[in-house]
Amino acid sequence: MTTLTLKNVRPMAAPATDLYIVDGRFAAAPTTGAEVIDCGGRILIPGLVEAHTHLDKSLLGMPWYRNEVGPSLQDKIDNERQVKRALALDPQVQSERHAILAISYGCTHIRSHVDIDTEQGLAAVEGVMATREKLAGLIDIEIVAFPQSGMMPRPGTAELMDAALAMGADLVGGLDPCGLEHDPKGHLDTVFALAEKHGKPIDIHLHERDSLGWFSMQEIIDRTVAQGMQGLVSISHAFCLGAPDRAAVAALHEKLAEARIHILTTAPASAPVPAVKELKAAGILTGAGCDGIRDTWGPYGNSDMLERAMLVGLRNNLRRDDELELALEICTRGGAAILGVKGYGLKVGCTADCVLVEGETLAEAVVTRAPRKLVLKGGRVTARDGACVVAAP
Amino acid sequence: MTTLTLKNVRPMAAPATDLYIVDGRFAAAPTTGAEVIDCGGRILIPGLVEAHTHLDKSLLGMPWYRNEVGPSLQDKIDNERQVKRALALDPQVQSERHAILAISYGCTHIRSHVDIDTEQGLAAVEGVMATREKLAGLIDIEIVAFPQSGMMPRPGTAELMDAALAMGADLVGGLDPCGLEHDPKGHLDTVFALAEKHGKPIDIHLHERDSLGWFSMQEIIDRTVAQGMQGLVSISHAFCLGAPDRAAVAALHEKLAEARIHILTTAPASAPVPAVKELKAAGILTGAGCDGIRDTWGPYGNSDMLERAMLVGLRNNLRRDDELELALEICTRGGAAILGVKGYGLKVGCTADCVLVEGETLAEAVVTRAPRKLVLKGGRVTARDGACVVAAP
Repeated sequence: MTTLTLKNVRPMAAPATDLYIVDGRFAAAPTTGAEVIDCGGRILIPGLVEAHTHLDKSLLGMPWYRNEVGPSLQDKIDNERQVKRALALDPQVQSERHAILAISYGCTHIRSHVDIDTEQGLAAVEGVMATREKLAGLIDIEIVAFPQSGMMPRPGTAELMDAALAMGADLVGGLDPCGLEHDPKGHLDTVFALAEKHGKPIDIHLHERDSLGWFSMQEIIDRTVAQGMQGLVSISHAFCLGAPDRAAVAALHEKLAEARIHILTTAPASAPVPAVKELKAAGILTGAGCDGIRDTWGPYGNSDMLERAMLVGLRNNLRRDDELELALEICTRGGAAILGVKGYGLKVGCTADCVLVEGETLAEAVVTRAPRKLVLKGGRVTARDGACVVAAP
Repeated sequence: MTTLTLKNVRPMAAPATDLYIVDGRFAAAPTTGAEVIDCGGRILIPGLVEAHTHLDKSLLGMPWYRNEVGPSLQDKIDNERQVKRALALDPQVQSERHAILAISYGCTHIRSHVDIDTEQGLAAVEGVMATREKLAGLIDIEIVAFPQSGMMPRPGTAELMDAALAMGADLVGGLDPCGLEHDPKGHLDTVFALAEKHGKPIDIHLHERDSLGWFSMQEIIDRTVAQGMQGLVSISHAFCLGAPDRAAVAALHEKLAEARIHILTTAPASAPVPAVKELKAAGILTGAGCDGIRDTWGPYGNSDMLERAMLVGLRNNLRRDDELELALEICTRGGAAILGVKGYGLKVGCTADCVLVEGETLAEAVVTRAPRKLVLKGGRVTARDGACVVAAP
């Protein structure tokens, strides 16, 4: 089934045409005997890219979790460790449920942060790695070794990070060097040393706001340049780029662009966020993600990156069609470029990772978010009519 | 069909029970021969209340409108008047499409602002009034006479407002007394005089931010008290209550509560918003609405007040179950109280306006937003499986 013809399809909302897939890639001409799928004039876009989530911690498929957690970041971190123990959460099962839901919505690539701490050790990384193998060919999963409970206050965590990277985690994660770690130098030196040792890129959660966030961001920029890691560092959330002092933010945009640091936004409605139009104007690669789905941090989310494009649009006050196309670009090509996906797109020669969406235009597809008629990964059908071809555990 | 038994239903997520509807109201005991509907253990909530929208201006059911409008409020107002002319938009047809969509999502009551200006006169009010009659028994529609293009810069508008109120519009509308009208005294004196003349309540759009909005709000409070209109004035949007100076906002909350002025929020992700938990703590009645749906102002929206509850939750950073229940309360009881709906609720004697929602808990219903299995208005089935029982034109 990786050789087929998509009839009556509108690539990126262009006029209807036929597209040919041969051996999992878009081809200039059909092969004889290829299966034909009538796309009914629907729009085809490349696969949606979930570039910031937490596959290991979703409570999907479990009884409803009654959230009564306190307001601080530390409250949520402590509560999560405790609930995971109490519920005996299985990271393999949960990540499989989560990834299958994402596939049903047209996702073909995920970057997931995965918790590492001195309590659960590498269990979550092992679980998500098992899911990655199990779902190979259906979705690609990148794993960020993520010290959710902090490295500096918990001796032994850095060694676990090191082991996770040796075992197959793809990126080094990090988290609020000041606000949570209380030791920006110690934290960032450790993160960058791990990246150098393992030759792996970096993705750091940065919730710190205003000047505290600017300080941490500058420390990240300096180390990125010093270590020659331009193009290999992402900053997730980057709330400090949503600060009211736009002149200070513009100066940071310039430095981020120069260091080729990428930004990943989840576009939360209740926090300051990077302004996606300004990031684009500054030449900064931007991707997006749903963040955690139905976990102890919050009850929201469904892994639908088309809904995330809408939320990026709502948060950034995008109303014009060209602006909504930018929101969609962030949730497709932006994330793919940051994840370094090779052969991404709808051109001849590209891998046939793609999804049919509903609407007259790309903007309509984003605001409508109808169930996905068809999702392909390397030309293989992974979801039909909003349901993944494999059942969740 | 206004006499029936709802079997195996969970009112407000309570344990499953049977509920009886006799002659359109919840009753203590069944009548013989009543039709029985098995609710499959689903949660029953009272009808969703759309307390701030614009039924006359949606482009639902028309070809996709490519939005290329400029960024200012005046750009959007001018663009809309021009597009309405160019498309020959029919307010009756559009409001019917919009209201039917709302019904399909479990809405039983709508407060709609309806444009009045010197160009289209009362055509939009007449159109929405025709829809109100046509859909009587399926949904209740309240009409706010709304001077979208301003009263002060457009002589003749106040007279049209007067005529609309005489004709059957239910409330006097208003709009940014400073920012748009450039004459707060003239605008508010006119609005309050119309309210006094017709004995009708007021609902004013207030987008003005920070101290400008505080000024206008204080002018509204003063007139409300002077005219003895406590409990009869709503302020929509009220972005100035989302200002960073929380001490100034808290002082206004007190005055609003004293004057029994209600707040209606659409919880936009890109603007400052009233903090719903603070409003509740201050004793201010709060409702919510989707604002315009798929119109020349913006492409978003689907009339789903369960989705709006989620967006209220996301914007206000509500994560705990009790907080999500507040978001749902705002989209049901809060709006109903502001609209002055009599006999609202699920108790014996209340009108059987209600909707089945999916989930183990109310919070799950809000984040899941699954298609509504059943919607009742006065005990009559108005929607099943996400579709209204009457077709849109």
